[in-house]
Amino acid sequence: MAFDTDSNTIARDETHDLISSDKVEGTAVYNRQGEKLGTVTSFMVGKRNGRVQYAVLSFGGLFGMGEKFYPLPWDTLTYDTDKGGYMVDLDKDRLEGAPSYDRGNEPTYDRAYGERVYGHYGLAY
Amino acid sequence: MAFDTDSNTIARDETHDLISSDKVEGTAVYNRQGEKLGTVTSFMVGKRNGRVQYAVLSFGGLFGMGEKFYPLPWDTLTYDTDKGGYMVDLDKDRLEGAPSYDRGNEPTYDRAYGERVYGHYGLAY
Repeated sequence: MAFDTDSNTIARDETHDLISSDKVEGTAVYNRQGEKLGTVTSFMVGKRNGRVQYAVLSFGGLFGMGEKFYPLPWDTLTYDTDKGGYMVDLDKDRLEGAPSYDRGNEPTYDRAYGERVYGHYGLAY
Repeated sequence: MAFDTDSNTIARDETHDLISSDKVEGTAVYNRQGEKLGTVTSFMVGKRNGRVQYAVLSFGGLFGMGEKFYPLPWDTLTYDTDKGGYMVDLDKDRLEGAPSYDRGNEPTYDRAYGERVYGHYGLAY
């Protein structure tokens, strides 16, 4: 498929393209160079507005040791049907400098954190 | 809190009110009479648009036997901070007549199914 530059656009015939929240984990994330950056570990969803605000990418580590979690603002992601995963326009260097955390050290997803994450990716919070 | 009649409205200071997709399960759902109808088992999320289309409510059954799953269109739900759960304007009789399925018999969430579910709740798909 052609990459959709507006991830909020949804064709009428794609509205059945749903994923259950308990099956989100493990979805692959690629960059535009075709490199697999890691996998989605969870979505962070607005309890009220029902919108995914971040996909949390995990990568690195061996048997879970050294693994890092990177919240990616939803608007940085495009779903690629052919690959069955998300694509993000992000090289590995930029990702490695991005806000991240270790397992068990989840941040408070408040405004200050949101501004830091969005800012890193050049987005307005 | 006052019930918010527009579940898509989100106050600026509530934007940190996020839930991880792997912690959605178990959130209580109440009706306006204060009866607990069941709990959320999962959200069904648009892979592309990042919007929750349904919260799947489960109830009934003993040790998982006889348990039924009811997809509720997102717009029928309001998050109630005080209760820490969702509120839906739905009496038990209407819920019992709603489209539902058994464990292991998940429907295809296509347009036809969406129209049937939304129609039951008086919503346009």
